[in-house]
Amino acid sequence: MSFNSYGQMFRVTTWGESHGPALGCVIDGCPPGVPLNAPAIQHWLDRRRPGASKHTTQRKEPDAVEILSGTFEDVTTGTPISLMIRNMDQRSKDYGEIAETFRPGHADITYWQKYGVRDYRGGGRSSARETAARVAAGGVARAALAELAPGLTITGYLVRMGEKVIDRARFDWAAIEANDFWCPDPVAAEEWAGYLDWLRKDDHNSVGAVIEVVARGVPPGLGAPVYGKLDTDLAAAAMSINAVKGVEIGEGMAAAALTGRANADEIFMGPDGPEYNSNHSGGILGGISTGQDIVLRFAVKPTSSILSPRKSIRKDGSPTEVITKGRHDPCVGIRAVPVGEAMVAAVLLDHFLRDRGQTGGVRGKIGAG
Amino acid sequence: MSFNSYGQMFRVTTWGESHGPALGCVIDGCPPGVPLNAPAIQHWLDRRRPGASKHTTQRKEPDAVEILSGTFEDVTTGTPISLMIRNMDQRSKDYGEIAETFRPGHADITYWQKYGVRDYRGGGRSSARETAARVAAGGVARAALAELAPGLTITGYLVRMGEKVIDRARFDWAAIEANDFWCPDPVAAEEWAGYLDWLRKDDHNSVGAVIEVVARGVPPGLGAPVYGKLDTDLAAAAMSINAVKGVEIGEGMAAAALTGRANADEIFMGPDGPEYNSNHSGGILGGISTGQDIVLRFAVKPTSSILSPRKSIRKDGSPTEVITKGRHDPCVGIRAVPVGEAMVAAVLLDHFLRDRGQTGGVRGKIGAG
Amino acid sequence: MSFNSYGQMFRVTTWGESHGPALGCVIDGCPPGVPLNAPAIQHWLDRRRPGASKHTTQRKEPDAVEILSGTFEDVTTGTPISLMIRNMDQRSKDYGEIAETFRPGHADITYWQKYGVRDYRGGGRSSARETAARVAAGGVARAALAELAPGLTITGYLVRMGEKVIDRARFDWAAIEANDFWCPDPVAAEEWAGYLDWLRKDDHNSVGAVIEVVARGVPPGLGAPVYGKLDTDLAAAAMSINAVKGVEIGEGMAAAALTGRANADEIFMGPDGPEYNSNHSGGILGGISTGQDIVLRFAVKPTSSILSPRKSIRKDGSPTEVITKGRHDPCVGIRAVPVGEAMVAAVLLDHFLRDRGQTGGVRGKIGAG
Amino acid sequence: MSFNSYGQMFRVTTWGESHGPALGCVIDGCPPGVPLNAPAIQHWLDRRRPGASKHTTQRKEPDAVEILSGTFEDVTTGTPISLMIRNMDQRSKDYGEIAETFRPGHADITYWQKYGVRDYRGGGRSSARETAARVAAGGVARAALAELAPGLTITGYLVRMGEKVIDRARFDWAAIEANDFWCPDPVAAEEWAGYLDWLRKDDHNSVGAVIEVVARGVPPGLGAPVYGKLDTDLAAAAMSINAVKGVEIGEGMAAAALTGRANADEIFMGPDGPEYNSNHSGGILGGISTGQDIVLRFAVKPTSSILSPRKSIRKDGSPTEVITKGRHDPCVGIRAVPVGEAMVAAVLLDHFLRDRGQTGGVRGKIGAG
Repeated sequence: MSFNSYGQMFRVTTWGESHGPALGCVIDGCPPGVPLNAPAIQHWLDRRRPGASKHTTQRKEPDAVEILSGTFEDVTTGTPISLMIRNMDQRSKDYGEIAETFRPGHADITYWQKYGVRDYRGGGRSSARETAARVAAGGVARAALAELAPGLTITGYLVRMGEKVIDRARFDWAAIEANDFWCPDPVAAEEWAGYLDWLRKDDHNSVGAVIEVVARGVPPGLGAPVYGKLDTDLAAAAMSINAVKGVEIGEGMAAAALTGRANADEIFMGPDGPEYNSNHSGGILGGISTGQDIVLRFAVKPTSSILSPRKSIRKDGSPTEVITKGRHDPCVGIRAVPVGEAMVAAVLLDHFLRDRGQTGGVRGKIGAG
Repeated sequence: MSFNSYGQMFRVTTWGESHGPALGCVIDGCPPGVPLNAPAIQHWLDRRRPGASKHTTQRKEPDAVEILSGTFEDVTTGTPISLMIRNMDQRSKDYGEIAETFRPGHADITYWQKYGVRDYRGGGRSSARETAARVAAGGVARAALAELAPGLTITGYLVRMGEKVIDRARFDWAAIEANDFWCPDPVAAEEWAGYLDWLRKDDHNSVGAVIEVVARGVPPGLGAPVYGKLDTDLAAAAMSINAVKGVEIGEGMAAAALTGRANADEIFMGPDGPEYNSNHSGGILGGISTGQDIVLRFAVKPTSSILSPRKSIRKDGSPTEVITKGRHDPCVGIRAVPVGEAMVAAVLLDHFLRDRGQTGGVRGKIGAG
Repeated sequence: MSFNSYGQMFRVTTWGESHGPALGCVIDGCPPGVPLNAPAIQHWLDRRRPGASKHTTQRKEPDAVEILSGTFEDVTTGTPISLMIRNMDQRSKDYGEIAETFRPGHADITYWQKYGVRDYRGGGRSSARETAARVAAGGVARAALAELAPGLTITGYLVRMGEKVIDRARFDWAAIEANDFWCPDPVAAEEWAGYLDWLRKDDHNSVGAVIEVVARGVPPGLGAPVYGKLDTDLAAAAMSINAVKGVEIGEGMAAAALTGRANADEIFMGPDGPEYNSNHSGGILGGISTGQDIVLRFAVKPTSSILSPRKSIRKDGSPTEVITKGRHDPCVGIRAVPVGEAMVAAVLLDHFLRDRGQTGGVRGKIGAG
Repeated sequence: MSFNSYGQMFRVTTWGESHGPALGCVIDGCPPGVPLNAPAIQHWLDRRRPGASKHTTQRKEPDAVEILSGTFEDVTTGTPISLMIRNMDQRSKDYGEIAETFRPGHADITYWQKYGVRDYRGGGRSSARETAARVAAGGVARAALAELAPGLTITGYLVRMGEKVIDRARFDWAAIEANDFWCPDPVAAEEWAGYLDWLRKDDHNSVGAVIEVVARGVPPGLGAPVYGKLDTDLAAAAMSINAVKGVEIGEGMAAAALTGRANADEIFMGPDGPEYNSNHSGGILGGISTGQDIVLRFAVKPTSSILSPRKSIRKDGSPTEVITKGRHDPCVGIRAVPVGEAMVAAVLLDHFLRDRGQTGGVRGKIGAG
């Protein structure tokens, strides 16, 4: 049992607070023989790094990762991989005034009620800075997947920011890396830029978002019944990300509105195995991957740290108003994209190893001969 | 690690296939001294039982539970509680013809691809019959919660069936038990009855649903950062239920459309502790319960077993059409209501015990003196 | 977390009390495609069965195992295997008088102190009847090992009964099955028979024993650093057996008396890989199997249930003397032999699957070219 | 599942290699509100530190611990505690020549066979340097136990070095800290000093040892049936320590030689609860603590790194002789004493929290009224 770990065979334990000396993770169970060094992980961290555009927090963190164990001559050894990222830009003074109050929508009050003690600087352990450790672990998972399941790709992007949604007719994979929002719709991206500027500077407000992550090239057979379902673990992985309030696989909540006839993904025999005429299932049936694209979506609530005053109380019960200064993302959903990708990578690798352990990769054949 | 267990301190392992001799569960970690006997569990099983109305499967199963261990003189002893339910109405011949084909939307194909062997009778392990074991375990969890957190209630209901949604203005707690759909809107319930009749008999179709489960009287402080979040475990619990494709806490996916100002649940001091002017958070902040109502919602896809023909393939790759006879729920969402309640009960008890283990129930005080 | 489970990938959860209706286990993670039926498991249970000779308890239990799930047409499906054994010969009245007292050397007093409730009939959950479930699970593990590691054998035997030890010069594998004590020294076996008769009938006493279990044909590479050591898991498995007080691997406690020069197992190159000129290590180095025989030894204390009076107290604190009637083994070590074998089988299979999951069976080569 | 973690509620994950930049651990589940700072942990590390006397390795490591997370203002917050110790005195060149050979008695060969890659510098992950992380974690466990179970003490000492054993008639608790061997027999300690000098300098040899760890003041009720036994977890904890080959609780292996009459710890009523006239059980019955002293013993083999040549092979299979230079303990058992204490502390705290979670500390009363 662990409150701060996820995964079974590829097991990640994260640690660290927003304003402590460092944060990091320990990864246990990584296969041996995987090429890995710090730059390979840094590549992914740079995508999540704060301060990369004017649309994210202005906290300046290089998020430079150190590999403290588990590799030898740039190859994993099969022993625990310890990764550390030093915090460089803590401005603890920003938080002195909130030591005795509870910011609405934040974990301040529940941490206090549960533990009777809290590190109030930047939210302590509840800060989204913890997600840097997830991205680092995801980088390791990607390196292992590159060896074990070549051709598997994982791509995340924003499909909604507040009331504004992308037009799927304009979906362009190449656009995703070409704007500050990981937005596959270049027209929407432009509109969002102006909207977010106004929201932050003029409205002193924040906004939610929906992230979609697609994994292509996933072999069939990953996942398991009943509580070891691939979608169960993906849902838990997504819901564990800060500020996430909803998770969908394939059709998601919209599946409720469909009939059985409409929802069935009919099966045909293709040259390399079964094919489907649609993907309502999001690539998972009975908790096990079909070989179709795996489609995960999750909703991130608007950040609770805003410059507009909200009513709250102090520890002593007296009323107060809270305006959260400091440096915050007006739309945390943006930086949640690389985090979501990382979680999907970790879950897929974990299930790859679990499946290999139990079944040895033996598979039921489909097709003649 | 286990594919068929959930929970950490209150740990449930289920077993059994749709058409095997029996199904059941083993519950480890239940507190000692809890009054418990078979009728207390049967009460909850009767709510999920198939064949209870014309709107659910006509398979006749008494679902009579036997307690095989873990109690002595109608009190739990703290040792494993083994529960067994005999299958009584297996019509395996219904399934002979699908041994060589894969029903679209079912786990037939993925089980085959993963394991290279499958019990095709009624879906085997992938059948929703497994949820009887969940409901039994939930009955045990409720008995323990009645001792540990008196006043805590858990209530589930349908808020959507296909395109039809309830009118929250007509929400009536008393109505939930008064119709075949666990529907809190009596007007909607009547409409749904006719719709479902038509769907089943005339349209040979099925339909999805959205279930909402509310837990009231949950003490603050349950849950934990980061991967031990209460909402993470609720999301996993819901997603592990057959046919679930989406999960929401509080505002859920709609949180993405809100601004930070709108989404903040402002805090006030009440006579018994903190109060909130809204509950967008669904009773959970930073993964830890606030003391507000916990609100979980999940979407169930339409059952894939329908009388309308769908295109598929055989094991040898040749094309075929599948019409699923047998006895199936036209809307599995209905019977998912007691299942959802049971999962919430198990998760809350588990977190109660985990919290008591780590913190001993010591809490940060809010208020003068 | 679970108090009643062991293993990670091959995960066994046992349940049941001495005088409840039944006992059993649920096995999760068994590989699919393993030939398995009830007689294959019964074979191993019959070796542990009570009442098989005059030297063991006279409780008459057929220990007939039922497979309730997890197989289809006599092959494992990869889903949970539920095994049940009905208790047939409960004489609860034997135990009425101990409801208010605590038998010295028994778990009566600690169960009461911990749980505040206990099933006093036959020791309830603390009874060695639980080990029937272990042997059943071990039967499943052996069936899987027969597929995955053909040639691997596991053999247990008694090397000590009280003050009497075997003469290793007379060690005869064939003798083990030829006497009531699983004793590899036929001369000792004869002497033990007379001794145990006298001890039970005349001395109203019991005696301890040392069991040795040897696994031959174990591939190198099973186990892992640091808390996943093969010997760590073997030690835990042995120590979890009722009445066990000591566990040894290879030289065991005697290793403390050796010098480094004497203890080194020197390495040579053989036709099929590395060979060693001795096996002080018991087949495990750094927690990982070497390919040599794995040698586990454990000591079982004398059963505490004897006809000689021992001083104790009642629940109310008043003094009393306890004479334990009922039907008990004068030397529980005898029936611990098949239990020890079963635990070794489960641990080896578990590590086989864990190793396959993490490393995929890729191995560092030793030898030219 | 994790290869490098132990404990359930108080969960410790260690990482690091002998010659990597650092080693450390992450502790999850520590109760909040425990006073803790680096000096409190350093106190325990200094007892294990290499180079503290001429009888241990001359590697100079300050073993200075850094707390990277999990405390705020010198109090634990309930979030993960990350501890790091930098390696300062790596002489990797000592190990260059063993890159292609396997040291007899070492994990060199099994790591290579399992992983196909290894960090050969100082044994990499298999080095006893890992135990520094255990001692640090044990320091945290002790700090928590001081709050939760005041009066509980844990003391380890050497009872055997090679052929030389202590005389229990001379047992003196005060002597333990007064010599270089944690030896409670001051006469033996003096003899051992001369013996070890000769062994190291003249005989180029090493020797094994037996460590005993006693925990006094342990409340009754810790531990659980069947695989969650306190002695099971203590056995695993001890066996996981480098070079350990045997583990005993109470009478240990000698229990096998006793009769039931001799082995019974008779029970009497004392002023504060039950008392026993002996402690053959080592303070544990049925896996649950009785309140008597818990007595754990374990045997450590002689270190395999000696200056005397031993036969071995190279990776290519060719024969060679190995003389292990470098800086090694002639008797690793000495430094295993604080390691054993640390493991006992971690196990006891873990079981304290697990018991509190499940039972809430409610206990069956013994005595009138």
